Amino acid sequence: MLEIAEVGRTISERAYKRALPDLREALLAAQFDLAKAARGPLLVLLAGIEGGGRSETANRLTAWMDPRHIRTMAFGPRTPEEDAHPIAWRYWRALPARGTIGLFMNAWYREVARYHGRPNGYARFEYLLDEIRRHETMLAADGFLILKLWFHLSPEAAATRLEELQQDRNRLEPVGRARKAMDAYFARRAVWEELLRQTSTPHAPWHIVEGADPRYRDLATGRLVLDALRAAAAPRARRAAPRATRVGAASIGITLLDTLDLDARMTDAQYDDALPALQQKLARLTRRKRFRKHALVLVFEGVDAAGKGGAIRRVTGALDARQYQIVPVSAPNEEEKLYPYLWRFWRHVPRKGGITLFDRSWYGRVLVERVEGYCTPADWHRAYGEINQFEENLVAGDIVICKFWLQVSKGEQLARFRSRQKTAFKQFKITADDWRNRKRWADYRAAANDMIERTSSEIAPWTLVAADDKRCARVQVLQTIVDRLDAALG
Amino acid sequence: MLEIAEVGRTISERAYKRALPDLREALLAAQFDLAKAARGPLLVLLAGIEGGGRSETANRLTAWMDPRHIRTMAFGPRTPEEDAHPIAWRYWRALPARGTIGLFMNAWYREVARYHGRPNGYARFEYLLDEIRRHETMLAADGFLILKLWFHLSPEAAATRLEELQQDRNRLEPVGRARKAMDAYFARRAVWEELLRQTSTPHAPWHIVEGADPRYRDLATGRLVLDALRAAAAPRARRAAPRATRVGAASIGITLLDTLDLDARMTDAQYDDALPALQQKLARLTRRKRFRKHALVLVFEGVDAAGKGGAIRRVTGALDARQYQIVPVSAPNEEEKLYPYLWRFWRHVPRKGGITLFDRSWYGRVLVERVEGYCTPADWHRAYGEINQFEENLVAGDIVICKFWLQVSKGEQLARFRSRQKTAFKQFKITADDWRNRKRWADYRAAANDMIERTSSEIAPWTLVAADDKRCARVQVLQTIVDRLDAALG
Repeated sequence: MLEIAEVGRTISERAYKRALPDLREALLAAQFDLAKAARGPLLVLLAGIEGGGRSETANRLTAWMDPRHIRTMAFGPRTPEEDAHPIAWRYWRALPARGTIGLFMNAWYREVARYHGRPNGYARFEYLLDEIRRHETMLAADGFLILKLWFHLSPEAAATRLEELQQDRNRLEPVGRARKAMDAYFARRAVWEELLRQTSTPHAPWHIVEGADPRYRDLATGRLVLDALRAAAAPRARRAAPRATRVGAASIGITLLDTLDLDARMTDAQYDDALPALQQKLARLTRRKRFRKHALVLVFEGVDAAGKGGAIRRVTGALDARQYQIVPVSAPNEEEKLYPYLWRFWRHVPRKGGITLFDRSWYGRVLVERVEGYCTPADWHRAYGEINQFEENLVAGDIVICKFWLQVSKGEQLARFRSRQKTAFKQFKITADDWRNRKRWADYRAAANDMIERTSSEIAPWTLVAADDKRCARVQVLQTIVDRLDAALG
Repeated sequence: MLEIAEVGRTISERAYKRALPDLREALLAAQFDLAKAARGPLLVLLAGIEGGGRSETANRLTAWMDPRHIRTMAFGPRTPEEDAHPIAWRYWRALPARGTIGLFMNAWYREVARYHGRPNGYARFEYLLDEIRRHETMLAADGFLILKLWFHLSPEAAATRLEELQQDRNRLEPVGRARKAMDAYFARRAVWEELLRQTSTPHAPWHIVEGADPRYRDLATGRLVLDALRAAAAPRARRAAPRATRVGAASIGITLLDTLDLDARMTDAQYDDALPALQQKLARLTRRKRFRKHALVLVFEGVDAAGKGGAIRRVTGALDARQYQIVPVSAPNEEEKLYPYLWRFWRHVPRKGGITLFDRSWYGRVLVERVEGYCTPADWHRAYGEINQFEENLVAGDIVICKFWLQVSKGEQLARFRSRQKTAFKQFKITADDWRNRKRWADYRAAANDMIERTSSEIAPWTLVAADDKRCARVQVLQTIVDRLDAALG
């Protein structure tokens, strides 16, 4: 999910200067309200890449607000006194009081990661993540508003940052150290991904901040802190549910979906060349003896008329009919409503050697059900975590999961709608619902962005498919499946 | 905590027959209400010792209610079909629908335990417990009412049960198998203790059922199921918080505190003999070099005038004054109220080589604050889990924890109150509060019983101290500390 902070968000100096005075005034007012109500406190955790702007952000926030009610704590290597106490002791000592703000650098997240790579350390890592979840749950139950910011840079942005450091004559630390820290960070990317996924809870989700442009970073975090301050100062009963929307999808800057190049095109000749070859590879992979110890789950989501059905047929064309099952998903029926939301999908989990293609899926919970209000905000907020656990369960059962989001441009969708209306045998494919959904394009797009951020994981990543050209889309889908299966079967 | 189901609870046949008709009628009515409202469902998990009455209870419940709306599932070794799917698959398939009741034998708890003893299996065990917690949290969020019953027998009761099986000509299974299963159960007692502690959550606490007397067992579980059915049928918003009170402390039968022999007495000569020897041992242990890698936390709780102060002085009499700190705990002050409840106790956690004696403690949350309504029910319900995690943190930091509950009889307390009033230099020790608390004797006793059940763990067990005779109490306290320290220092 870290790729959401590699899209190159920037803010012009002019826009920055225009926005800043209002933001600072609002921050001060919100901080004053929090102190007066003695609610909260607000705990801001800043973690992520070295040089990504953690300490700059902490300094900026302290400069913008009243520093007397802010407590900044940097947790480095343990002191002898800290070593003489239980691990959690130093974090408890540093907790901010009600009515105040605590800025914790790294906090309990840095210590956790080092177990990941050790022999037998993985389980210890998992255990500590659980402890962290329990600790944050306790704080939240006690009234804490927890804002977790993860600063990230793309490898290119990190290189640029190093150059800047090199030229900065005021720097205190040797550049070599920053370079080493950045290298270590990128080497552990999978660790961070898992850490973020496993500790993004409804009451304390991670916000991934693209750290490359200081102006963007400052404004984006400033606004997040403002939201959090206001929520923390509100009476508990009226406190808003934590927003699923994070920096990546905030009104400021661009989102991961924006980075899709919808103009990509493929000639007929290229397509006729690529597709059969990929289908043949897929056929061979799914007939391998080793595949009988695995299973395959394919999830197709996307905007209306993005070509999910066509892509699915190109996949099944390569498969043995006894081996796969297509599950079209629409609103739950009366029986399904009697069970927890994920129950009906568990029913279709393939057995070993099997393949299930979901034409729409459990992600309906955080897409259509969220946008149309078919479930409560509390329901779809907790769905992200539940879905992540569901997919973890599948992967632990040796199932390979590929999730595709098919995106077409608004213009292309309109063209396809009109073509469906004109073609007799395609008319069934277009309904009043489709036109209605089209009007809520922005809402669905925001929901899709949140979904991709919160459920893209190393073990079950989303593949974003630019589908204005159906040929490109189909080839990308098949290529992805072939690659993932190839990797899993070794 | 399993010892709470070893106290020998029985119910006479007459009392049983008198209670049964009402219970059955109420169960049927509640089941009907649940089905009509299509709420819940109610999921009853039955686990624990072989021969402790799990299946008998399931049969009984099915006989008492309408079996058409009950689904009983016994989860044994995995079938080939189950093996071809992810681990959680069979449990999802078996979930009861809204409006119905599911009786799950063992369910996800049996599979977990086998990892405990394996090399490197412990972390896996911990991880699976976390998965279970997340799964049950999800079910609860979805409206499930989860009732978890753990059946337990004392070793003596288990032996009796085996004899009964021997004489039962209708038995289907060889007795040897039951004997083997019971032996395996007792060998893993520490595993069960930890499992119960770690998966007793506010929304799905364990109830430990003493399985020796079938009449007691049936009535006790019947009443628990009745409560749970009624809660499950209520609208979510009005659903009562889960009761902390479990079978051990239910109005039916006796509690662990009842098993204390308050008549124990010790002569002056015995006391003068035992105390100095124990004090000397304690002095030697706390001066050992190895103690510098540990620390000691002593918790003194108990009814008013039970002799906490006197016991504390007998302990500190053996210690180096630079080494220990006595922390008297009363209502939190204004500063302490600005932080989470456990914050003020973390401040007094001893560093390595140190000793802290808490005269009253964090348990105030589930004693005085619960009984007097100083915190909300939600607050003290979640406190059990938070306290268990707090103590886990301390133990992980090499701290030895001894927790003492000093109990005097009501008559002895009265005598001590009066003596304090008469003795000039003791008058400060008796206040109007003491007399008022005495009137709420039963409430405090119920709270103490719940506390002991839910926070007695292998790593930080409660020691119940019969304190009508102060000499006995002091000797027991010192002996316990010496034994625990001795074990920890090896």
